[in-house]
Order: sequence, then C-alpha cells, then structure tokens
Amino acid sequence: MTRADIKACVFDVFGTLVDWRGGVAREAAVFLQRHGRSAQEADAFADAWRARYQPAMERVRSGERPFMRLDVLHRENLEEVLSAFGINRAQVPAGELDDLNLAWHRLDPWPDTVEGLTRLKSRFIIAPHSNGNVKLMIDMAKHGGLPWDAILGAEVAQAYKPAPEAYRRVVDVLMLSPAEVCMVAAHNSDLAAAQMCGLRTAFIPRPHEHGAAQTTDLKAEGNWDWVARDLVDLAKQLGV
Amino acid sequence: MTRADIKACVFDVFGTLVDWRGGVAREAAVFLQRHGRSAQEADAFADAWRARYQPAMERVRSGERPFMRLDVLHRENLEEVLSAFGINRAQVPAGELDDLNLAWHRLDPWPDTVEGLTRLKSRFIIAPHSNGNVKLMIDMAKHGGLPWDAILGAEVAQAYKPAPEAYRRVVDVLMLSPAEVCMVAAHNSDLAAAQMCGLRTAFIPRPHEHGAAQTTDLKAEGNWDWVARDLVDLAKQLGV
Repeated sequence: MTRADIKACVFDVFGTLVDWRGGVAREAAVFLQRHGRSAQEADAFADAWRARYQPAMERVRSGERPFMRLDVLHRENLEEVLSAFGINRAQVPAGELDDLNLAWHRLDPWPDTVEGLTRLKSRFIIAPHSNGNVKLMIDMAKHGGLPWDAILGAEVAQAYKPAPEAYRRVVDVLMLSPAEVCMVAAHNSDLAAAQMCGLRTAFIPRPHEHGAAQTTDLKAEGNWDWVARDLVDLAKQLGV
Repeated sequence: MTRADIKACVFDVFGTLVDWRGGVAREAAVFLQRHGRSAQEADAFADAWRARYQPAMERVRSGERPFMRLDVLHRENLEEVLSAFGINRAQVPAGELDDLNLAWHRLDPWPDTVEGLTRLKSRFIIAPHSNGNVKLMIDMAKHGGLPWDAILGAEVAQAYKPAPEAYRRVVDVLMLSPAEVCMVAAHNSDLAAAQMCGLRTAFIPRPHEHGAAQTTDLKAEGNWDWVARDLVDLAKQLGV
C-alpha cells in the first residue's frame, strides 16, 4: 500500500470539501427573513433539508424510481422543508425556490481544500466522486476555485453512493484498477463502501460539518489506508 | 445572437484543439523503425489509422454494436492498420500496441489552444465535446495543460457525434438550453449537426490538420454564429 500505486484521487464533496451547512444556512437566512421568519432558524432549515438527502437517494438506490440528478431531489426536498417549517408554498414564487435550490451550487470550500487539491493534482488525477450532479459540481468549482481534472460522480455513474455501481463505474471511466483509485472522504460509511469495491481510502475529519454539536465521523472508524488532519496534510502524506 | 446568451462553450478536440496527425505520426515513426520500417511512412500510418475512425463509430451509431469507448475502437483499428502496412501482428507484443494506442492521449495542442481556452474559461463553462473517451481527454489535458471545467463528450453521452443524442445529452448534463451552448469546431459537419440540435456554432479553420495538401474544411461552409481565425480570436470576439 504505497502512494506509488495510486493514479487518481476521487473525493466526496458535501462536508468533505465544502461547508454545505454554513452555505445553505447563509442563503436560507435571507429567504426566511423575506418570508417573515427569523434568521435564527437557518441552521435548522439547512439541517432539515439535508436530513431528506439520504431518504430521497434511497428511493433511487432501491429502484423505486429511476435515477434523477440531485438538483431534482434537492428541489423536491425543499418543498417538503417549506411545509415542515409552516411556510405556505403557494405564496413563494417558483423562481425564488429555484434560486434557493442553487445554494448547493454556491457552497464555500473549507480553508485547506483548494491548496490540498492543487497539490494532489500535481501528481494524481483529481475528480469529485459526489452524489451531486455534474452542473452542480461545475458551478461549485467555478465559485470556489476547485481545480478538477474531470467531473465524475453519481450523474456520470447513474448511481448514488454508497451503491457499489457508483464506485465501480467511476473506476471504469478512469480505466484504472480499483486499487489505483483513492476515495477521500470525511464519512466512514463512504470509505467502507469504497473499500468493499477495492478502492484505496483516505479519511479526513470534518468535525464541524454538522455544527458544534456534531457526534458522528469525528474520527476514523475503519482500517483506512490514510488518515490525515486535512487535505493539505493528506497531500503531504502522499508526497506532494 | 449575442455572446450574452451563451453560458458554455463545448469543443471538438481532434483537429480543432490538438494536432492528432503530428502527434500520432511522431509515435508511429518510432514504432515503424523498431519494426524495420521507415519513419517516412509515419504520416501515412497516422492517416490510415484516422481513416478507420468514422467507419468504426458508424457501427456504433447504426446500432450494429453497443457503445464502446474510443480507446477500444482505436485499438481495434490499430490492428487493421498493422495488417494494411504488412506488419505481422503476431510479432508485436500486445503491450507495445497498448502503448502506441495511447499516442492519442499525448497529442499536443495547437499554439493558440491553451491561451484561447483559458480566456474563454474566465466567462464560460468550457468542456470537450469530443468522441474521445473521458480518460483520453483527462490524460490529454494533463499532457497539454488544457484547463477544462469538466470532461463531457461521447462517453458521458454514450453516443458518438454527429448523432443528435450526443449534442442533446451534453446540453442536458449542463442543464442549459441548446442556445446557451456554443459548439466550437474546425469541422463544418460537426457544426451542422450541432446547429440542427439548436446549439450555437463557432468555426475556426485548421488548414493543416490533414497536412499540407488538405482540401476539406478550409473555410466556413455554413451559417455559423461565429467564424474566427483561431481560438484566441474567438475569445476576443466573445469579449474575453
């Protein structure tokens, strides 16, 4: 298990590379105030939106519905969140919801993300392996300066992580063996699924992804190939 | 028809952005000499290989066989070229052919390509819309410094240009309307197919793509939205 084996690093994005909670809450605060609510509810709004993320993808993974890109699932989930927050959907223009849905396209990277990716790009192919769709990843990269070699992930694979097909198809598109691809994530479950498919694994903790009271994924919980403090530390461990 | 309408520029690659003939001939010359042949045959070798490109894709477009990535078609075509050149396939190690097949991954950009793409990237999403597969495009971009926002094209669309699905699926992945996407190519037939699908079109001539005696695509032959001398000129016309 040496770095020399690796040809590509693929990355989880929401939470691992960007601060989805802070970014969504920032835009939700403006939205909530516009509709007579308090900006204090913005974190809860972001959490409620994100809480519907896995169940929505599970309906695709289970075969209950065909593959839909994440922007579509986010938009459906947003309508449910409005309802949960007692906001009358009929009084919100569709264009305003469409724009709020794009908050996910405008998330900011963590402070170490761009430097870490830039270092890793000097030796490896780097690409997102996210459940976010291609356009979402393109917009986010242009917003935050993420220097991708390619945009991979759920929409290219037509499968959502942690389904094995999602990992296998990304490896196939890269024309590499699984052991030549390293999955980088702040989530142990993502790495466990990647490892089952034969990929290398690297964990970096993001202890504030869910806010100050986070209780999950505070540390590596599997036998991962690399564990690093952040993305710059991972790059150093990989010799770049 | 103003530049303000456009959100993305997608590019033909072989011939439009990179010199496939010079790059393939350079590696073919070494191969030919290793097998007791003259480097003088290298241009003809490159032309013979490229001549099998459209017929091979046509078997996919017609439905005669399922979608295969271009690396597979190139590899099959290479075996035919060996035969046409009277080289005994049995005496060439497979690994040597695999490596020669990667000549397509190592093509050099034309002198204006990187500057033109870099300028265009400052305002637009830029992505290859090539019949080359994703890994081929990634390797070529790393080799030549092409600053893509994403890698699109045949493998993502699972369809080869000029099939309409190839253009439609790329527009769909970008979540744009066809008129917000500009197809850039040195080939009038590519632009004609893109225009039929509602895309904007930009022509740049590459009069030496096929060598000094080239007779095709020397000038714009359709009602394209933009006609430029090269990619830097196109960027200027588009205001960047």
